[in-house]
Amino acid sequence: MKKLSFECDYRTGAHPEILRKFIETNMESLDPYGTDSYSESAEEKIKTACGDADIDVFFLSGGTQTNLIVISSLLKSYEGVIAADTGHISIHEAGAIEYHGHKVLSLPHKDGKIVPEDLKKYINDFYSDENHEHMVFPGMVYISHPTENGTLYSKSELETISEICRNNNIYLYMDGARLGYGLMSNETDVTLHDIAKLCDAFYIGGTKVGALCGEAVVFRKEVMPKHFMTIIKQHGALLAKGRLTGIQFDTLFTDNLYFKISKNAIDTAEMLKKVLEEKGLRFAWDSPTNQQFVILENSQIEKLKEKVGFSFWEKYDDNHTVVRFATSWSTTKENIENLKNVL
Amino acid sequence: MKKLSFECDYRTGAHPEILRKFIETNMESLDPYGTDSYSESAEEKIKTACGDADIDVFFLSGGTQTNLIVISSLLKSYEGVIAADTGHISIHEAGAIEYHGHKVLSLPHKDGKIVPEDLKKYINDFYSDENHEHMVFPGMVYISHPTENGTLYSKSELETISEICRNNNIYLYMDGARLGYGLMSNETDVTLHDIAKLCDAFYIGGTKVGALCGEAVVFRKEVMPKHFMTIIKQHGALLAKGRLTGIQFDTLFTDNLYFKISKNAIDTAEMLKKVLEEKGLRFAWDSPTNQQFVILENSQIEKLKEKVGFSFWEKYDDNHTVVRFATSWSTTKENIENLKNVL
Amino acid sequence: MKKLSFECDYRTGAHPEILRKFIETNMESLDPYGTDSYSESAEEKIKTACGDADIDVFFLSGGTQTNLIVISSLLKSYEGVIAADTGHISIHEAGAIEYHGHKVLSLPHKDGKIVPEDLKKYINDFYSDENHEHMVFPGMVYISHPTENGTLYSKSELETISEICRNNNIYLYMDGARLGYGLMSNETDVTLHDIAKLCDAFYIGGTKVGALCGEAVVFRKEVMPKHFMTIIKQHGALLAKGRLTGIQFDTLFTDNLYFKISKNAIDTAEMLKKVLEEKGLRFAWDSPTNQQFVILENSQIEKLKEKVGFSFWEKYDDNHTVVRFATSWSTTKENIENLKNVL
Amino acid sequence: MKKLSFECDYRTGAHPEILRKFIETNMESLDPYGTDSYSESAEEKIKTACGDADIDVFFLSGGTQTNLIVISSLLKSYEGVIAADTGHISIHEAGAIEYHGHKVLSLPHKDGKIVPEDLKKYINDFYSDENHEHMVFPGMVYISHPTENGTLYSKSELETISEICRNNNIYLYMDGARLGYGLMSNETDVTLHDIAKLCDAFYIGGTKVGALCGEAVVFRKEVMPKHFMTIIKQHGALLAKGRLTGIQFDTLFTDNLYFKISKNAIDTAEMLKKVLEEKGLRFAWDSPTNQQFVILENSQIEKLKEKVGFSFWEKYDDNHTVVRFATSWSTTKENIENLKNVL
Repeated sequence: MKKLSFECDYRTGAHPEILRKFIETNMESLDPYGTDSYSESAEEKIKTACGDADIDVFFLSGGTQTNLIVISSLLKSYEGVIAADTGHISIHEAGAIEYHGHKVLSLPHKDGKIVPEDLKKYINDFYSDENHEHMVFPGMVYISHPTENGTLYSKSELETISEICRNNNIYLYMDGARLGYGLMSNETDVTLHDIAKLCDAFYIGGTKVGALCGEAVVFRKEVMPKHFMTIIKQHGALLAKGRLTGIQFDTLFTDNLYFKISKNAIDTAEMLKKVLEEKGLRFAWDSPTNQQFVILENSQIEKLKEKVGFSFWEKYDDNHTVVRFATSWSTTKENIENLKNVL
Repeated sequence: MKKLSFECDYRTGAHPEILRKFIETNMESLDPYGTDSYSESAEEKIKTACGDADIDVFFLSGGTQTNLIVISSLLKSYEGVIAADTGHISIHEAGAIEYHGHKVLSLPHKDGKIVPEDLKKYINDFYSDENHEHMVFPGMVYISHPTENGTLYSKSELETISEICRNNNIYLYMDGARLGYGLMSNETDVTLHDIAKLCDAFYIGGTKVGALCGEAVVFRKEVMPKHFMTIIKQHGALLAKGRLTGIQFDTLFTDNLYFKISKNAIDTAEMLKKVLEEKGLRFAWDSPTNQQFVILENSQIEKLKEKVGFSFWEKYDDNHTVVRFATSWSTTKENIENLKNVL
Repeated sequence: MKKLSFECDYRTGAHPEILRKFIETNMESLDPYGTDSYSESAEEKIKTACGDADIDVFFLSGGTQTNLIVISSLLKSYEGVIAADTGHISIHEAGAIEYHGHKVLSLPHKDGKIVPEDLKKYINDFYSDENHEHMVFPGMVYISHPTENGTLYSKSELETISEICRNNNIYLYMDGARLGYGLMSNETDVTLHDIAKLCDAFYIGGTKVGALCGEAVVFRKEVMPKHFMTIIKQHGALLAKGRLTGIQFDTLFTDNLYFKISKNAIDTAEMLKKVLEEKGLRFAWDSPTNQQFVILENSQIEKLKEKVGFSFWEKYDDNHTVVRFATSWSTTKENIENLKNVL
Repeated sequence: MKKLSFECDYRTGAHPEILRKFIETNMESLDPYGTDSYSESAEEKIKTACGDADIDVFFLSGGTQTNLIVISSLLKSYEGVIAADTGHISIHEAGAIEYHGHKVLSLPHKDGKIVPEDLKKYINDFYSDENHEHMVFPGMVYISHPTENGTLYSKSELETISEICRNNNIYLYMDGARLGYGLMSNETDVTLHDIAKLCDAFYIGGTKVGALCGEAVVFRKEVMPKHFMTIIKQHGALLAKGRLTGIQFDTLFTDNLYFKISKNAIDTAEMLKKVLEEKGLRFAWDSPTNQQFVILENSQIEKLKEKVGFSFWEKYDDNHTVVRFATSWSTTKENIENLKNVL
């Protein structure tokens, strides 16, 4: 039997419908650099999915690329971006934000999230500090939704954070690498319409939700950086064959495919949760999305690793470790059954 | 009849064999970030194609991305890169090299190429200038092969440039966005083995030679930047699903596919040349590769544009314009026949 | 006899009145970071000298520092700065502008100056190029006044350039490292009031005009970058003891000292010109300011160098070299007499 | 009576001997850009003061400038600098380090210092994290000595930190903005010889220790960045009149002036401490250098501020605030007596 794979949500290829569409359109001569008909169609479909908000949509290849381009194109040179200390930009993007000139201003996370009160206090403390002209101005708040811990902001939390940002002329930007899994969670009250209203910029993740690569970055029209295509080019992120991302997102946003396959990850995650519970495993914290975090005894880990792929998260104590099991758009019920048997 | 398309070499999708391979491998659970088996296999095949030289191979998404990462990771902060004034980095990359901190030091081109004597003079003048500590040090020479004008360096020219570089401790870097078309030209004496020996770094272009996206960047082992994967990540260029480029290059370097489809572009370009000549069109300059540059009367252009796609290159005089016709891996004999009929 | 010194205009210390003022104010406890009373007084005096235009004034330490901070704080990431190919930022600032992310877009100089027609053509060509989204946008015009060649723009030339800039939403920035010498030239029709009206930003050079260090950078109020003090700090250019530049500029702009000592450089330059002419030396070009450029036979140079300091400018032909003699605020009539005797 | 000034150590001008030397040398024609005889003499004297260690010395204008140039010239693009969260680069340099591309990796301070054990753990954790290729590599440790809190590392602490750095190929860099006050403290066992041996780079602060501006940056010869003068120029930090810093440091390192005037700050700080103690004020923490931190009732502050300058440090609790009193090279016994009377 092949080793079971729950390490992460980017180990299989693309949803088959995407590959079918690649083949169907392959010999069409299309305009380059994202001006092709599929990119345009994808943009329209995403606008509709966002509630026809006054937005602009662009396609990029990956999450770190999207984060660094959005952040560096929206911030002034003297501004930084506030993020939870568990945020992807805070630790796992190899300093890409700093490499592009901006400090990540870390706030201690609670369940992987920024606490609105902490945010308010941070901003107030900054502006009441008489030396703040010698410090990095807060110019943006970065949140992940779902977070790196699999958790979700409630609508009320999002509204509060959005209000704090608007009151202080600070952008609110959402990293939606796994946005589909957040939107289809059984425990969320946040819709894509809400996000389009409350955020200044966000991205709809493709790489982790059924695409080979690609993220759809959305800006409120009035926030949209001028000459964004040139900015993308300057970062080496402009695909000559824009069809690569255009066709993928056009397919994902046709017949709600993006949401259907996201739902699959949630459904299989719920099954996974039950299996893990039944086997008496402790959860490190509660996650309503496709990533589940359990505490294993170190002695268990080596043995289990032979048959099941999962990923190391963090040390729990000298004898225990937190590990992550992730489902995805491509996880099947059989995968979960097999895991059950192995456990 | 559909409009004929000769605008450029990146308007169709991928070679069908690549798409077939995507489907075949789609549900395999593969390691992320370029550590998958296909990326590794592609690396080995490229090493072989380069004559088992002492090299390292990495995969990136596009040409500008590759140029900026290679250049900024090899240069010291006080160094710039010498390029022909027609070089892609000199004009058409939106200042990506400067955005990443380095000046492009332009030399006047001859047929799109750097003249070795000019290069030698530039370097000598620099070091004999008593104020050179206040100037940008030449740290690298950038050449395109084929050039933006479709021309090629001879082996002897390459050897001379390489020698100048090595004598002055300057890197030689080749932009091979269309390398396949250069290698399969009927008029070249330069092989991939030569390039691997004479250059410190170069890339084998995929985007313009049958891939949906992707360039294979090659470093001489001793030149290879330390922690290059982290550098790639920091630029937002690390694909989570490295299979995207790995599978494409593995396919292109299996059974010489890369060279065969490059040959197709050359063969159809030769046919195209004959058709253009027969129709009495003047060439702006001679090109032995897949891009052909002809001088059209401005009055002709509007009419022809209705039926044929080609691209504006530059003004020739008040009444004439240089335009480009490009073939590619996917151009067919029928395309050329149809063009003949239209002309 | 001590060797005569005409190499450049920054080899002596400060005008004695400045040193006197340093001593007079030395033990006063002053607010740091440019908020001291002398900096404020200097700012007011400069505003008056500029015709009470709607401007803001800041003090920085040197010319390259000023250029890179002004340019990088006014340009968008996708913009570059147009300059003559002889401009200081084009060649002699070690790539400081590129290091801070922006391309210097060179125009061929005429007598060290940008030709307004060339500028107009460059901008028109840019916007009419259908690929300009892949190129560096012109965001600013940089001119030196006096130029590196000692020449001056006429008021009419400045007006034309300013108009071109405003019609195209491009900033006009003047490097006034030797501004005093330009303003006091016998052949200029340009006043400080004109400059304050026609430029968006400029600086009044101190380092080369009687200060130990320091440049007064002036912004039209509406162009002034927000939080400029933080931007200065971020570049490491905020002096803790702002008194250093404040006192110097307060002194220079008291009782027209800046203009009086500039006039001395012009007067001695006129004497110098006569001496050089009398001795039958050829001028490389005509300069109405403190720098004079003559063509020497290479054989003359070695001998002359033993007794007189001057600086190498450029090769003229195989047997001749252009050299520069510079006067300054501190050059005396005796210095010129002595030179006459030596020649 | 004039208000007493204890806000900070950079509110008076320069030591009178420096001004005397400015006047004495003012009309000498000196080589520019730091190649003058005074800069060279200063360099030699500093080498001697450092125990003739194998070092190179350069002069820069200010602390933030020095920090950002040293850090960005020594680090690789993928590296960051470890600092205490109270470190100047962590909070009060307007993000200058990040603006130049590098993350500041904060460790919680203890008395303003990095704890060696924390440092060791940080580095070990980093290298044992299997995802560290996606994170910022620790490339340097930054310590302030004295720290921002006025505290000092013991020789043993410095040795341990130095050893950790060398074992991990990480640079150790000391910010010596107030180094004189640290070296002359009655409670230190660290000498300049020790520092020159244990650090890879450090600077001897002038701005806060008797100079109008200027810091002497010292590199171990083998660590010295190549073409450092060009790097300085590129940052806009190369003074045309290098005499400005050269003469100041030459004066400060003649007849031990630097140490004598530093001693004055320590002696007056000791007197200050006694006065504050006698008046029953509580110290926030113990400081053996020229900065003293006391806890005042908020109600006291407003009243005291009318007669004495001091600076706000941080909130202590709702009713109390920590404030700083600083002595300097120019503080007199009379100043302290007067303060006593006021209190």
